[in-house]
Order: sequence, then structure tokens, then C-alpha cells
Amino acid sequence: MSIERVAIIGLGLLGGSIGLAIAKHAPGIVTTGYDADPATREAARKRKLAGTVFDNAAEAVGNADLVILCVPVGAMGFAAEAIRDALPEGAIISDVGSSKQSVSDTLRAALPDQCVIPAHPVAGTEQSGPEAGFPELFEHRWCILTPPAGAPEDAVEKLGAFWTNLGSNVELMDAEHHDLVLAVTSHIPHLIAYTIVGTASDLEDVTRSEVIKYSAGGFRDFTRIAASDPTMWRDVFLSNKDAVLEMLGRFTEDLTALQRAIRRGDGDALHDLFTKTRAIRRSIIEQGQDDARPDFGRSDH
Amino acid sequence: MSIERVAIIGLGLLGGSIGLAIAKHAPGIVTTGYDADPATREAARKRKLAGTVFDNAAEAVGNADLVILCVPVGAMGFAAEAIRDALPEGAIISDVGSSKQSVSDTLRAALPDQCVIPAHPVAGTEQSGPEAGFPELFEHRWCILTPPAGAPEDAVEKLGAFWTNLGSNVELMDAEHHDLVLAVTSHIPHLIAYTIVGTASDLEDVTRSEVIKYSAGGFRDFTRIAASDPTMWRDVFLSNKDAVLEMLGRFTEDLTALQRAIRRGDGDALHDLFTKTRAIRRSIIEQGQDDARPDFGRSDH
Repeated sequence: MSIERVAIIGLGLLGGSIGLAIAKHAPGIVTTGYDADPATREAARKRKLAGTVFDNAAEAVGNADLVILCVPVGAMGFAAEAIRDALPEGAIISDVGSSKQSVSDTLRAALPDQCVIPAHPVAGTEQSGPEAGFPELFEHRWCILTPPAGAPEDAVEKLGAFWTNLGSNVELMDAEHHDLVLAVTSHIPHLIAYTIVGTASDLEDVTRSEVIKYSAGGFRDFTRIAASDPTMWRDVFLSNKDAVLEMLGRFTEDLTALQRAIRRGDGDALHDLFTKTRAIRRSIIEQGQDDARPDFGRSDH
Repeated sequence: MSIERVAIIGLGLLGGSIGLAIAKHAPGIVTTGYDADPATREAARKRKLAGTVFDNAAEAVGNADLVILCVPVGAMGFAAEAIRDALPEGAIISDVGSSKQSVSDTLRAALPDQCVIPAHPVAGTEQSGPEAGFPELFEHRWCILTPPAGAPEDAVEKLGAFWTNLGSNVELMDAEHHDLVLAVTSHIPHLIAYTIVGTASDLEDVTRSEVIKYSAGGFRDFTRIAASDPTMWRDVFLSNKDAVLEMLGRFTEDLTALQRAIRRGDGDALHDLFTKTRAIRRSIIEQGQDDARPDFGRSDH
């Protein structure tokens, strides 16, 4: 028995992309959707992000065998409450949040009788909202499931098969470990991108217009990441506080060491690090996780 | 009288792109080239990065009215020495280095009788070497000239016209101010990208394979920048030490403030910053300094 009826709660970039990906890869699955924002529901209907978009969450989930909560991590508790009384028995409850330990705790506390299997598709763009989704978002990207101890194996398998169907590679992981891994591959990069863009916009001796004009020297890549959805990212940092602070501590130590190397004029230390980091880039491209074209193909040559 | 014979010393990404851009945009200009590495000279001949590629620097510059040094900032002094005795009277000496105060001092000390006008085309990719160049690299990018006090106006104009010809927007700036502006728009972004990639590759509780697999969450963008040429970047940090340390200090202050906000659970402070940074991204796209396609068009949807 595979999944046949999916309810998507939250129809922004992730929720909308799930709906479109189902329509592309698994058109036999019936989709329903809901978003708290009426304008988003309207846009979702126009773009057909789900087969039926309902005006309340309870109706959207009433017949589902899989419910995916695609709301900011901080809103998971409210979303769970809104659907609690309408959930069919045996429905799998999952999500797409970027931190997993706190989401898992929240959902299991709010829905103690339900089969909760949190998930995190590691995919996204800097865009958000119902216009941002597209059906290929999850192809060749990893989707991490973090089933709590005792989660029924067949439900985990069904959810894994669902994501495989949308083009993802599926991996199982402990929620705590997930949060540490993503702190370094996603949360800290976002935090330092937001920081440097903020620093640059507050300088007195360099104008904002200069920052913008000369951004092609590297800065513009950080502005892309720092254009990501503010509410989503606020919630990520608040909900994954421990792992983020731990990784931030290690980053700061390493940055201080580099600062000392620059101050002392220790060119060898700089050159050693700058050489080592190239190897990781090569592996990322070899494993299909980024575009090998120089400059992401921006220059179209 | 405009520039008619350009000698390019150093035939990597920048030098090679200048040669190709001249062939595309100003085919009337005669180009000569030299690189210290015989394999690079060979590759440059095959790709026709310059009309004639010579086996020594002196021959390459013997007939030039503009000499552009396209070597790492730390090698500018050696390059200047190698061409000193062969330079035609009245030739303009320029460069493409990413820091300008130290290059200006070095070149003027090594070539006291020559007209030295340092320049910095704010353009590049993460690639390097003679295969990396392409003729469009400078189009719609800024090229900053930092003429020293007393530089002849007609020479500054000629050099500006040369870069305009290759498709660049030209701006004049004081070398010291240039170094401060580029510290924030280019040097610090590279430094923190190198740092986080180094941090991620040295963790004990997260494997390198996990870092690579889940890099699509933001980390992979940093690896692109951290794949840039190690020698070039070592020299940039050593030669622009003061401005880099100054800007790094401000970045660290801001990062510490965010760290505190996370520790205290101050969601409003996080949301405020994450909202503000979106505006800069919009301006960069409006001014044509980056690609507006989500995710740089990686997903090709």
C-alpha cells in the first residue's frame, strides 16, 4: 500500500513544489492543500499547486493518508493543533522543516496518537511564496527522514518511497545528528551571509551604493542566501539554537586563527587552507550537488 | 591617440580574458603576452589569448603602449623588475590586482620613470589558469582605476577608454578607499567562505561525506568562492592587511550580536536583520550585478 492522498499544509516554495512534483512524477496521487493566507490560497489555486485548495486546514487533511506540514518551524505547533481533530486514523504526519529535534518534539506532543515522521528535503532557493515553487526542486537532492524511536517501519518505508518518487535520494538520520549536520551545511552559512550583508549595509566609510556596484567580487553570492525568507530562518535559528551555537563557536575559532595569520603575515597558513578547500568543491560537483559551470553559468559563455 | 599595442604579463583567467576581450571588442589593437609558466604559454598560444606569446617578458613589452600585469599581487614587484629595462618610453603600466595601495607603491617604486596607473576590474570566476578566460568577463562589470596623485590626465583617460571598450563601466577611486570598499565586497566574503569550508572539513562529529551530500542547503555557494586561486588570495590578504582586519573586526562584532540574539531567543532582532538584507539583494539585481533567476538558474526550470 503506497501513499494515495497527500494533504499539503502551507503552500509556499516547499509546499507548492511538493504539489507540482506530485503532479509531474506521481499524477495518481490526489492532493489537497491549505495555507493560512487567503492570497496564497488564491495564487495556489491559479497555479494548481494542489488538486483542491481548501479554506481551512481541517477540511484539507480530512481524507489524507499523508499530511506534510510546510510551514515555518515556529508555526508547526499551531498547524498541528489546527488539524488535530480532523486527522484520519493511521495518517502519517510529516513536515519539511530545516531543524528536526524541536519539530519532532512539538509534533509528537501535539499529536500523541498519530504516526509522526519528520523529514527535511535539503533543497530550496532564495525565493519564497506560492509563485516560487517548481516540480523539479527535489530532483537529485537529498531528503532526510528522522523517524523517532519506535516509528512503524512500514510508514517510514512509505514516506521514503514517496520522496524517492519525487526524484529525491532518501536517507535516515537521528534528529539530533541531523541538526548538527545541517547547522554546518546550511544554518551557519545562512547566518554568516545575513551577517556580512548587514555589516556591509551599515558602514559609514563605504556607501551602500559602492557595496552594490562592486558586489561582483564575491559579496553578491552572499546576498542571494541573505534574501531567503526571514520568518523561516528566524525560526530555524531559534529552534536549532544548541547546534547552531556549537558550530558558530568552531567557525569563530577558525576565523580567529586566520585573522592571526593575516596579522602576522603568515602566508603559508593562508595558502594551505585555501588549497585544502578546493577539494571539497570538487567532490560536491562530482556528486551532482552543484553546477560545475564557472560562476554558476552566470556569464553564459 | 588611443591605445594600439597592449602587452599582457600573466595569462591566467584575467590576462587571458583581456586578450580575448580585445580580440572581440577592439580587434585593431595588437596584443603580445607572456607567462612565467611554459605550460601556460603553450596553452595561451593554442587558445590565442594574445596575438604573439613570447618566451620572455622583456620581449613581450618591447613595443607596447600599455602593459597590464595580470599576476598575483605578491608577484607584481618581480614582474616589474623583469620588464623594467625593456619598457618603451611613455608606456602606461597598469595591472588587475585586487588590492591597490600596495600594488601602487610597489610598481611606482620599481618603475619610477614610468606612468603607473593601477586598475582593478571587479570581475572573475572561481576558475583560474589559461583555459579559464573568456571575452565577456568584463562586460557590465566595473573597472576601478586608482591613478596616483599627479598621474597624467590623458593617460588616465586612455586607460579608461580602453576598459570601456572591453565592455566595462569605469570609475576612478583613491587607492586607499578602493582597498576598504573591496575588503567588504570581496576580501571578507572570500575569507569567511574559506573559513567555513575549512571548519566543515575538519569536524569530528560530522563527516566530510555528510558535508558534501547536504551542501545544497547553502554551503555549496561558499565552496564555489572557496575554490578560487589560493596564491592570488593569499597575496590579497597579505597586501590589504589593514583594511581586511578592520572590516573583519566589524563583521565579528555583528556576528557576536547575532550569536547573543540566538542565545537569548530574541526572534525580533533576527527577523529585523533578515528582512533588511533582502533590500540589498534587490538593488544588486536591479543594477545588473547579478542574475535574478532563483538559485542562479541552477535548476533550469
